[in-house]
Amino acid sequence: MHRGFYIGRFQPYHGGHHGVIKRIAETVDELVVGIGSADKSHTEQNPFTAGERHVMLTRALADVDLTPYIVPLQDINRNALWVSHVCSMCPPFDVAFSNNALVLQLLEEAGIEARQGPVFDRSKYRGTLIRQRMIAEEPWEDLVPDPVVQTIREFDGGYRLREVSKGDVFER
Amino acid sequence: MHRGFYIGRFQPYHGGHHGVIKRIAETVDELVVGIGSADKSHTEQNPFTAGERHVMLTRALADVDLTPYIVPLQDINRNALWVSHVCSMCPPFDVAFSNNALVLQLLEEAGIEARQGPVFDRSKYRGTLIRQRMIAEEPWEDLVPDPVVQTIREFDGGYRLREVSKGDVFER
Amino acid sequence: MHRGFYIGRFQPYHGGHHGVIKRIAETVDELVVGIGSADKSHTEQNPFTAGERHVMLTRALADVDLTPYIVPLQDINRNALWVSHVCSMCPPFDVAFSNNALVLQLLEEAGIEARQGPVFDRSKYRGTLIRQRMIAEEPWEDLVPDPVVQTIREFDGGYRLREVSKGDVFER
Amino acid sequence: MHRGFYIGRFQPYHGGHHGVIKRIAETVDELVVGIGSADKSHTEQNPFTAGERHVMLTRALADVDLTPYIVPLQDINRNALWVSHVCSMCPPFDVAFSNNALVLQLLEEAGIEARQGPVFDRSKYRGTLIRQRMIAEEPWEDLVPDPVVQTIREFDGGYRLREVSKGDVFER
Amino acid sequence: MHRGFYIGRFQPYHGGHHGVIKRIAETVDELVVGIGSADKSHTEQNPFTAGERHVMLTRALADVDLTPYIVPLQDINRNALWVSHVCSMCPPFDVAFSNNALVLQLLEEAGIEARQGPVFDRSKYRGTLIRQRMIAEEPWEDLVPDPVVQTIREFDGGYRLREVSKGDVFER
Amino acid sequence: MHRGFYIGRFQPYHGGHHGVIKRIAETVDELVVGIGSADKSHTEQNPFTAGERHVMLTRALADVDLTPYIVPLQDINRNALWVSHVCSMCPPFDVAFSNNALVLQLLEEAGIEARQGPVFDRSKYRGTLIRQRMIAEEPWEDLVPDPVVQTIREFDGGYRLREVSKGDVFER
Repeated sequence: MHRGFYIGRFQPYHGGHHGVIKRIAETVDELVVGIGSADKSHTEQNPFTAGERHVMLTRALADVDLTPYIVPLQDINRNALWVSHVCSMCPPFDVAFSNNALVLQLLEEAGIEARQGPVFDRSKYRGTLIRQRMIAEEPWEDLVPDPVVQTIREFDGGYRLREVSKGDVFER
Repeated sequence: MHRGFYIGRFQPYHGGHHGVIKRIAETVDELVVGIGSADKSHTEQNPFTAGERHVMLTRALADVDLTPYIVPLQDINRNALWVSHVCSMCPPFDVAFSNNALVLQLLEEAGIEARQGPVFDRSKYRGTLIRQRMIAEEPWEDLVPDPVVQTIREFDGGYRLREVSKGDVFER
Repeated sequence: MHRGFYIGRFQPYHGGHHGVIKRIAETVDELVVGIGSADKSHTEQNPFTAGERHVMLTRALADVDLTPYIVPLQDINRNALWVSHVCSMCPPFDVAFSNNALVLQLLEEAGIEARQGPVFDRSKYRGTLIRQRMIAEEPWEDLVPDPVVQTIREFDGGYRLREVSKGDVFER
Repeated sequence: MHRGFYIGRFQPYHGGHHGVIKRIAETVDELVVGIGSADKSHTEQNPFTAGERHVMLTRALADVDLTPYIVPLQDINRNALWVSHVCSMCPPFDVAFSNNALVLQLLEEAGIEARQGPVFDRSKYRGTLIRQRMIAEEPWEDLVPDPVVQTIREFDGGYRLREVSKGDVFER
Repeated sequence: MHRGFYIGRFQPYHGGHHGVIKRIAETVDELVVGIGSADKSHTEQNPFTAGERHVMLTRALADVDLTPYIVPLQDINRNALWVSHVCSMCPPFDVAFSNNALVLQLLEEAGIEARQGPVFDRSKYRGTLIRQRMIAEEPWEDLVPDPVVQTIREFDGGYRLREVSKGDVFER
Repeated sequence: MHRGFYIGRFQPYHGGHHGVIKRIAETVDELVVGIGSADKSHTEQNPFTAGERHVMLTRALADVDLTPYIVPLQDINRNALWVSHVCSMCPPFDVAFSNNALVLQLLEEAGIEARQGPVFDRSKYRGTLIRQRMIAEEPWEDLVPDPVVQTIREFDGGYRLREVSKGDVFER
């Protein structure tokens, strides 16, 4: 049996992520999916809580043929400790997939097998783009899996994103 | 649909927890299971990492008829913020089950429905007792679900527990 | 009796804040005034300590007809916990006033009544502008209440601001 | 003008504290009153939030002839930084009063004048004793100033204390 | 060339530590000496600051034939991250010496060679005993290297220890 | 005897730092050298760990005529506490050298003698410039002391810097 690791912020979980995980599922039986920046929410770049993203992932992964372990990962802000943080919070894994150079370097220095993850169409699937569409009330629903559309609607995610994106107007 | 919340440290997950969750499963469709003190490990009272406990839970809950959401919860050390911490890290839930007076009080002050959880035979199922048996190399396997026995053996949990329980012999 | 809540960084407390609080005083008997970013000081954007800002507020509010509760609030950097943090540090309040979209959204999600605060002339009263004038040694005294002028002079706030605004010249 | 400093946890603010502050009021015009362990609440030893203690103090000090500055102080857990923490959060003061040997030593090493505070009848006025009486539902009201009795009743402090004192019954 | 690692709290650095390091010096050319609990000071168990302990070590090691790297190590309170914390703060080392079962277990799990350190006469050399003698103003000077006696006298360590050991007399 | 203090991030330690320290060595017998941002590593601006920088400093200072005390200093993010943090972690010093206006202001407010440090040719020696050369694989070796070249090669610092500088390509 083979267990992999994949991490993202999933703000929100979209079709690009979903394509990657389906590709990874061809090579592993189980997958630890880390929800990065789990402590962040209610900002333009990180509108959704870790709990809300957990629901998105659980529902979207229901149709993928692997056993997922979903793990919220709070930011730790010390790169040299990040791998230990991940490894203590997550079920042990054999191989990590990432397209992030820092993540790959940290894993490699720690002696963990790390591979470039499968690629996806980044001109189409980008969290920033999706959030901009939600703010502008333009169509975004085709860019994320259907269960994610439903989840975001359940907690009125579009409204929250529009509100918090109005900027921090504290007098400065 | 009904989603509940239940929290424990699960050091390790044992038959008492399992009985409680099976009882709760009769009343909810989905259950958020919080792994408390997720940041603690390698001590006599908290030998196992959050990741290791995640594996125990995932395997043991496979035979229970509900959808589990397993969520490691780092300690926050500010009681007044604990409910918000839990609610941001977990999928939203309708009702929380606990036998801990502090947890019940905090949830109640926050306006969340909290119920006494089902009871189990605490003279038999107690984490402290199980850990003492592991340290003394006495039989403990009948006190935890079979998949947990297997999990603890996989990462040689008994050896670690025996080592870290030798005490902190730093000269003081 | 009615108790309100109002928050600012008050770097420094100026005529715009003072106008708002006088307007709020018409609708509440008591007002909790939160000093935001209480842990920040000695920077160009946050030159004054929480203690120094506490003195400014105490003296300036002496002529306003309400009972103030002045509360320094350290930043918490987890939006989802911010309301609980505020509520644990502050006397309970019935209504919060703010012009900050994030603050309004967080309070609303927590079920606390939040209202747009009274507006003031932001082209005239802006902390950034006042600090720039202090740095440039241009007149700023007419933009803040008299007791604040006196307070800033007592701890030689202008000198400190000019020094720390010279920039972080650590070789990089 | 003379400004003093006095700190306590005030769980709750009682007659002993009140006697001390009235004695200090004979020697200073203004008094910074630090609420220690402001981040602690909902435990047997620290049942009340900083905000609740702020209300107790504000009301009880209304009949004392001095200008109070009430400042919640979160624990910092680094003794060597404690004085700087206090000094940044509080209005500047000329003299500190304490009966705590550690506090006196830290202030003295920092070059701040620190004096033994006035004594009070510790066999009668002790927070532990008062909390035990509240838990046992025995009379405690004569041990605290009247406005404090009223305040504790307003947020049902006795009930909370009884609940949280039932102990942490997490299975261990 | 061979570089070792040895850690202690050194409250204070005493003859037992000194004997161990002299023995280790026979097997390595360079030694990283970690000052544990560097963030603790001004308590009965941890009276001296990391800076003061740094001076003790530097002076006492002047007569030992090895190149020392002295590194203050703040407590991290997450056992699973401790090895990464140490390794990021310290020059790289080939072998660690310790008599602490937890330290040995953590290093071993991280794949770092860890050996039982040389033993010393613990009935004679114990930090607790030395601190008790300092509090009681009984002779302690023969239990620590001469340069440490001088260092402690320079910052009047005995007086501080006696003061902070009077206990935390905050009314509770 | 005279002990000074000098702080830098030393990413990496270069000829400019070395010139300054040699100049300072003419006026003090001992020098505390603080490694700033000791908790940062594996970024484009802070590629090297505190431990790696400790080795650079130890080796480069071997030919300077003073006794160095090398002290890693984690960032504390509260300016008002920074001096206390430094003073608790470092051996006591008589005079601090710095060209950073904030550092000078903080030390001055704390009553510590602080002097403008000796200047060096900043058009030539700049950490940013050296790191850019390492990334571009252009010559940088003549800008740092020889023992630092050797140290960076030992842990393959150029490779790490190139990798982590590829940017954080997390999909956003």
